[in-house]
Amino acid sequence: MQALMIIDMQNDFVDHGGRALVAQAAQTVPTIAALLAHWRQQQWPVIHVIRSHQADGCDSERFRRHAPVCVANTWGALPYPSLAPLADEMVLIKTRFSAFYNTELAQYLAANGISDIAITGTQLPNCVRGTAADGLYRDLDISVVTDACSAQNQAVASANLQDLENMGARLIHSSALLAPDQN
Amino acid sequence: MQALMIIDMQNDFVDHGGRALVAQAAQTVPTIAALLAHWRQQQWPVIHVIRSHQADGCDSERFRRHAPVCVANTWGALPYPSLAPLADEMVLIKTRFSAFYNTELAQYLAANGISDIAITGTQLPNCVRGTAADGLYRDLDISVVTDACSAQNQAVASANLQDLENMGARLIHSSALLAPDQN
Repeated sequence: MQALMIIDMQNDFVDHGGRALVAQAAQTVPTIAALLAHWRQQQWPVIHVIRSHQADGCDSERFRRHAPVCVANTWGALPYPSLAPLADEMVLIKTRFSAFYNTELAQYLAANGISDIAITGTQLPNCVRGTAADGLYRDLDISVVTDACSAQNQAVASANLQDLENMGARLIHSSALLAPDQN
Repeated sequence: MQALMIIDMQNDFVDHGGRALVAQAAQTVPTIAALLAHWRQQQWPVIHVIRSHQADGCDSERFRRHAPVCVANTWGALPYPSLAPLADEMVLIKTRFSAFYNTELAQYLAANGISDIAITGTQLPNCVRGTAADGLYRDLDISVVTDACSAQNQAVASANLQDLENMGARLIHSSALLAPDQN
């Protein structure tokens, strides 16, 4: 049973008015929405990973402490509307790149017998890669959905995808996950 | 007080006869040796990070389980001779990319009041970056010594150094650490 993970697809990173726009993020929204619809239809597990930070910057990375992003209870922290979680879906809040760092993710996966994750979201060099690496450390099956992850440009995206494959992650296109004969 | 960290400079990664040679690693040996000599002269902390794996692959990353590297009690696991630790220097054994994962590193740093690390070693996309990221998650001062870290080629090295700088790491050349006016 493969879980679908959606990382940091929040207004601050995806919307043109966001505080920390990732240039490629918006173009991945339809693909992630299609995967999300498919996972929901199959009743497979979905894990939404979001940032939520204090307004004064105290729990941000040091390089962002003067200008925190995804501040709790602001528009920037909200999930991008078409990817918003349903009430019964898992939502994990993190304050660093990796979804495993200081969160209950590992415990949640173990409790639900999940050892296989398809990662989508933004951005590839930071939160996607950090989460993928931490998953690989724990011997999980980590797939990175190439057309559902984003970076500031394609060169950065491609370099990180190549490194991730060398680290043991599986690179997969969304079409292979959505194809009828895969299910 | 900045600690010098040397990651995975072991025969299997550095020597031409090694099982998992990193193409650029050997060329960084003189630079790391100069930094090590300087740190020892100043009596500053040095942290050697090495891999040590079971011969049957059971504690290796899954993609290496069929062909483990740095097998305990073999030549491949030995530190590269000119960078070998002294008896009173910290040696940390790890089985994944990050020196923080399942090791006592965080505890050692806290106990010794160390919040500033200059990272050297191999290889940049995996163990160097994984350790740097985990240090940044913990709000440590992470410097990556650009001419003392290595990868399979310069394109990979450069892409990873750029990502690391964007993540909040400081990129520094060894000459700045060895210059008399820095000390």
